[in-house]
Amino acid sequence: MKHGVRVDVINLGDELLLGLRDNGHLSYLGRELKRHGLEIRRNFVVRDNAEDIQQVFKNAWEDADIVITTGGLGPTSDDLTRETIAKALGVKLEFVDSVRVELEARFARLGRTVTANNLKQCYVLDGAEALPNPNGTAPGILFKQDGKLLIMLPGPGNELRPMFERDVLPRLQEENFFALEEQYLQLRSFGVGESLLENKLRPILKSHPELKVGYCAHEGLVDVRLSLANGTGTLADLRATGEQCMELLGEDFVCFGNHSIAEIAMSHLRAHHQTIAIAESCTGGLLSNAFTDVPGASQTFMGSVVCYHEDTKIEHLGIPESILMQHDVVSAETAVALATGAAESFSSDYGLSTTGFAGPTGGSSREPVGTVYFGLHTPSGAWTHRVQFSGDRLTVKARAVNAAVDWLRRKLTKYQMHDAFANIGYGMGSGI
Amino acid sequence: MKHGVRVDVINLGDELLLGLRDNGHLSYLGRELKRHGLEIRRNFVVRDNAEDIQQVFKNAWEDADIVITTGGLGPTSDDLTRETIAKALGVKLEFVDSVRVELEARFARLGRTVTANNLKQCYVLDGAEALPNPNGTAPGILFKQDGKLLIMLPGPGNELRPMFERDVLPRLQEENFFALEEQYLQLRSFGVGESLLENKLRPILKSHPELKVGYCAHEGLVDVRLSLANGTGTLADLRATGEQCMELLGEDFVCFGNHSIAEIAMSHLRAHHQTIAIAESCTGGLLSNAFTDVPGASQTFMGSVVCYHEDTKIEHLGIPESILMQHDVVSAETAVALATGAAESFSSDYGLSTTGFAGPTGGSSREPVGTVYFGLHTPSGAWTHRVQFSGDRLTVKARAVNAAVDWLRRKLTKYQMHDAFANIGYGMGSGI
Repeated sequence: MKHGVRVDVINLGDELLLGLRDNGHLSYLGRELKRHGLEIRRNFVVRDNAEDIQQVFKNAWEDADIVITTGGLGPTSDDLTRETIAKALGVKLEFVDSVRVELEARFARLGRTVTANNLKQCYVLDGAEALPNPNGTAPGILFKQDGKLLIMLPGPGNELRPMFERDVLPRLQEENFFALEEQYLQLRSFGVGESLLENKLRPILKSHPELKVGYCAHEGLVDVRLSLANGTGTLADLRATGEQCMELLGEDFVCFGNHSIAEIAMSHLRAHHQTIAIAESCTGGLLSNAFTDVPGASQTFMGSVVCYHEDTKIEHLGIPESILMQHDVVSAETAVALATGAAESFSSDYGLSTTGFAGPTGGSSREPVGTVYFGLHTPSGAWTHRVQFSGDRLTVKARAVNAAVDWLRRKLTKYQMHDAFANIGYGMGSGI
Repeated sequence: MKHGVRVDVINLGDELLLGLRDNGHLSYLGRELKRHGLEIRRNFVVRDNAEDIQQVFKNAWEDADIVITTGGLGPTSDDLTRETIAKALGVKLEFVDSVRVELEARFARLGRTVTANNLKQCYVLDGAEALPNPNGTAPGILFKQDGKLLIMLPGPGNELRPMFERDVLPRLQEENFFALEEQYLQLRSFGVGESLLENKLRPILKSHPELKVGYCAHEGLVDVRLSLANGTGTLADLRATGEQCMELLGEDFVCFGNHSIAEIAMSHLRAHHQTIAIAESCTGGLLSNAFTDVPGASQTFMGSVVCYHEDTKIEHLGIPESILMQHDVVSAETAVALATGAAESFSSDYGLSTTGFAGPTGGSSREPVGTVYFGLHTPSGAWTHRVQFSGDRLTVKARAVNAAVDWLRRKLTKYQMHDAFANIGYGMGSGI
């Protein structure tokens, strides 16, 4: 096992820089490598432009141990990675006949003939290994020089991912690049700002100078990442410190690891054989989606109604007409009636609801755009609360969903703090 | 207007390299800049590590005209951007008292007192301008040196985006960095593979060698981007070529520009004063969400039921019990019954439904995981079709949603091909 392995990732493609697509390859590679104890040090995104590719590649290759490139291996004229990197390395391209055979077999299966520009894909860096690509035409390339590893992967996700898992990961292990165990622990919290969280945790963390601490905030969640420099402690120490932090955070603590709040809330429900239903207005389906993203959701999630019209609320949820006559659609009373209506009409133990103004239009001076009322029906009573969010329509929707699910989680964990860990596991070691 | 402006973006944050989050800032900045004729040349993602930040920043600053950084301006100890970049530029940090006043006022409004680590955020590069941050504590920083512009933005999206739009964009215009008109046109298609699309369009595009053509595929959509090098043609030429491509693509053509398929489908419905309701099973709320993401959705979207249990289908949608007794829940018959049930129970003109197996468990040998049946109820009849998707749970959900909305769009556009453009506008010039 090598320490301090420097991994740089270079993604090619104009569409990433033009904002047409999120860089999902970076997230994927980051997660997969981290799972085996490797961290990406730097990421570069460049256009399909020979000069930029060469400059960035040289910079990375100079002081990295592993360089991974994605994209630019295709058959069209804007695919320049292969040629440019060969030039930067001072290595020739070599025609590999076994790649041609594979390519022709693939085209024959599809009833097509190989074109001249496809044959370009049979060229591989001299001395490199061509990685087979059962899902496309561009083989991957694995090249070693001076103890460094260059891994070139095709751009499409359905080609890159199987190739990475089947061919690249075993090779990284063979070359002894994997760490055996991850020396880090992540705590996820909700509802405490980043700096307040640091202040809260300081009494515990100041007595652990061996720990590196990192914070990351997103949509109301703040993740705290505790990691150990090599040889300064054990996973058991890390876990003990993590548990101290958990106790201190109380109900603001969501979980160890990378689980969604909905996953945590549902594991509580499942542990108690309880079910939930939803009635959502301003969140428009996104709240239901947070629950149904969790595999096995159908054990606990009974269903939901997205009500965009008043009539929907009355007809589908059996809400007394008098409630909507006496109170506004966006009000505490309607939120409770929606939650109770959802629980009753889906015969579930819990009912969760949202009603509000996501914008850009709607709202009033008293209840401006961004106002959301939440309702929660439980076997032991019903609650409501109001939050004023800022941001555009999609931000309000996303934040309202997180706030709703976290509110449910708090109500559930208040009485069952430790139950869920048995089902969920720690986000440490290789068990994330 | 300057030509060939070199823009580099540096994103800070371990979480991006560990795969905990997609780099949404890059996509956002890419889109916003492109809208004004600026393209990001290179993107660097680095850890919160002084050495890496310094190395990458120096590399970028050396030959860029504009460098934008995101993140690392927070109050916690791992926020190093400000100090590191000041050092790299050889510039001192200066305490800006007006930032302190803002900060204290903000904390007072929230009933909290400013902590020592928050005061760190009052330091700004000597000679730089502090950009106010109404949604957070870290001000942005705008710094000029030798005709170059450094723009440092806070990490949270709800702080970065308003600051970029309110303060940074006007400044870029002032400094004359914007191109006046965008010389490009984007066509969005659905259902044709990237290389087939290239072959289809070749007869038209080969007679326009002045056009640069780029393709980008995502979740069944393929965008074609036609752009003109400076001075080689006019927007009217571009538009004429785009319209030829549109005619050729027929119903596979979705729109010009960057609109979602749901936006296009809803503009058709709105133009004809028609409404829609949804009954979704395996897509679990995400299909409804695609519609409710569109501002003004409540004019056409009546509501939906997410049915995860058979009972839901019967009770909430009035589906005859006999259908579920004679046919599987995942079947063509159930899909049609759901669509019709949705339309009837929400009194809408159209009803759209999904029922299938998103995985990872479920399915049968005849209907494996990834099978989805779609149902569509219209004023002139009901249809159903079946698609077999591959990929994990979230991929199946996302692809099924795109397929469902696109199917609706095709049915609507078949009879009303040109109606929608009046409402939607072209994705060209600054009108995207």
